Amino acid sequence: MIALEGIEGAGKTTVAERLAARLQALGHAVVRTREPGGVPLAEKIRALLLDEAGEALDAGAEALLFAAARRLHVREIIAPALAAGRFVLVDRYIDSSLVYQGLVGGAGVEAVRAINAFAVGDYFPAVTVLLDLDPDEALRRLAADRRRAASRFDRRPPAFHRRVRDGYLRLAREAPERFIVVDAGAPLEAVVEAAFSALRARYGL
Amino acid sequence: MIALEGIEGAGKTTVAERLAARLQALGHAVVRTREPGGVPLAEKIRALLLDEAGEALDAGAEALLFAAARRLHVREIIAPALAAGRFVLVDRYIDSSLVYQGLVGGAGVEAVRAINAFAVGDYFPAVTVLLDLDPDEALRRLAADRRRAASRFDRRPPAFHRRVRDGYLRLAREAPERFIVVDAGAPLEAVVEAAFSALRARYGL
Repeated sequence: MIALEGIEGAGKTTVAERLAARLQALGHAVVRTREPGGVPLAEKIRALLLDEAGEALDAGAEALLFAAARRLHVREIIAPALAAGRFVLVDRYIDSSLVYQGLVGGAGVEAVRAINAFAVGDYFPAVTVLLDLDPDEALRRLAADRRRAASRFDRRPPAFHRRVRDGYLRLAREAPERFIVVDAGAPLEAVVEAAFSALRARYGL
Repeated sequence: MIALEGIEGAGKTTVAERLAARLQALGHAVVRTREPGGVPLAEKIRALLLDEAGEALDAGAEALLFAAARRLHVREIIAPALAAGRFVLVDRYIDSSLVYQGLVGGAGVEAVRAINAFAVGDYFPAVTVLLDLDPDEALRRLAADRRRAASRFDRRPPAFHRRVRDGYLRLAREAPERFIVVDAGAPLEAVVEAAFSALRARYGL
């Protein structure tokens, strides 16, 4: 399982599409997914997190709810795809909880890791591609893209996104064997090429 | 915090009412509550667990969702009441998760305990009153009480309720300093008297 991570506006969805196409061009079967993965109960859980009422949740309750939705997503989508020998590209996964709820939200990265270990067992990412981008640039991109549905995460102040970026970079320093950090401020083709060549090296493709 | 626990039909709600009245008669302020405690987000989380779609959840996902709802209940209702010096009587709490998801559901009692410790911090029950009842008798009571809304827990087979009863008794053996085990097959007044005299002894009332 390959997780795509980064702040809002870093380009995760576009890069995931391109990486999937490259893997498929090499003859690999790929499943692209993002939480809650179209799993109805997981969708309902996510809806609680993302609607306006979600403002009343603290990071600890968020971590529990994300972990519950993630468990369903793993069981219904990710585990079967991996069992069938497919590459799974997931747009946000456990590292998002470690950063957003654990580090930035204050619930504690080790506590959030433990909850997720309970939730998903061994289904941790083999590789996490971190699309690292300056938050000012990310916010410019988001402001220019009117198709995006606003979420409450998009409406956070710049300082929040800087803390998220710093959190991701901290996780990457602590687990260099798992993280591929890519400069997402580069042109798209260069971002995809950097990520893909690193993936080929990791997987021996 | 005093938790009332036991299988469906053991009489938790009625006994909680009577215990609250007895405590109030001694001059104590009492808050009676039950999960999700009227907390809107917790209600929404519980609705996911209890509706028909809940059949698709496994014990692990249930444990995470109950813990999230419990955290909100603690923050909004239980913690403020305890801070104000009130007795809190809660109808089902962490021991329900330990038994239903941890022991009977198979998620593991220590894992479920850890998730709940994350969720509620120090807000574990000071005393748990276990209303111990033969499941056959409990099912007879439930069948006779047509006012009760059926929940999916009520529709489980007798063997399930026996496992729940055994689970509670196991928790009680492992934590005798916290549990008060009452024979809920006795007449109501005897049940209340047994529970209340034990509570007076524990709290020095």
